[in-house]
Amino acid sequence: MNTQEVANKVVELTRKQAWKEALDTLYSKDIVSVESQAMGGGSPESRGIEAVQGKTDWWVNNMQVHRAKVSGPFVAHDRFVVQYDIDVTDKNSNKRMQMSEVGVYTVKDGKIVREEFLPQTGKEK
Amino acid sequence: MNTQEVANKVVELTRKQAWKEALDTLYSKDIVSVESQAMGGGSPESRGIEAVQGKTDWWVNNMQVHRAKVSGPFVAHDRFVVQYDIDVTDKNSNKRMQMSEVGVYTVKDGKIVREEFLPQTGKEK
Repeated sequence: MNTQEVANKVVELTRKQAWKEALDTLYSKDIVSVESQAMGGGSPESRGIEAVQGKTDWWVNNMQVHRAKVSGPFVAHDRFVVQYDIDVTDKNSNKRMQMSEVGVYTVKDGKIVREEFLPQTGKEK
Repeated sequence: MNTQEVANKVVELTRKQAWKEALDTLYSKDIVSVESQAMGGGSPESRGIEAVQGKTDWWVNNMQVHRAKVSGPFVAHDRFVVQYDIDVTDKNSNKRMQMSEVGVYTVKDGKIVREEFLPQTGKEK
């Protein structure tokens, strides 16, 4: 798949919250995944498909998703961007949050080799 | 300036279309600027502040901007993303176009050293 096809598939699968299918079919085994902040004090960077699988499991187990809007993709060369607007409740704290972030993805040989998540820090105008 | 401050300044200046001020104050002299497609058959990649200044001049001289919505920034580590929704008329062809794209910016030592522009290729849902 080229970048456009991988990007389309990410949008399709995240819209139906098919995280496992996305990981199994679109990600390189050597994926590097970078969060804006480390969860629990570790590194914001995870390496390898098992680590990313662990993050996904944590998300699914800990978050109740009320609504997720997936916008894009934006595509050029080996890079694509997808915007996520999500409304979730953290099952542990019962805190409900609305978050907007973009994922910046890099594709090599038809697989995602890097993803970075950037939260929105500015207000809409 | 850190990444957040540079990002805020890009949003502030592009909202008022102060392209020259943005270039003069926020960009590294060694900026690498990557378009999704080359204008006029050359390389999609421009190197150096003069080349980017040339692109900006071309844009200002050739496009009549009816409306520009600037969203973001989305910020993490050395990277930030800004979304541009623009409604312009190409003064040469008189063709009016609505475009959405994101800029993915990389910051080093308080200056933008790389920018990539990715057009939206998927429909909103």
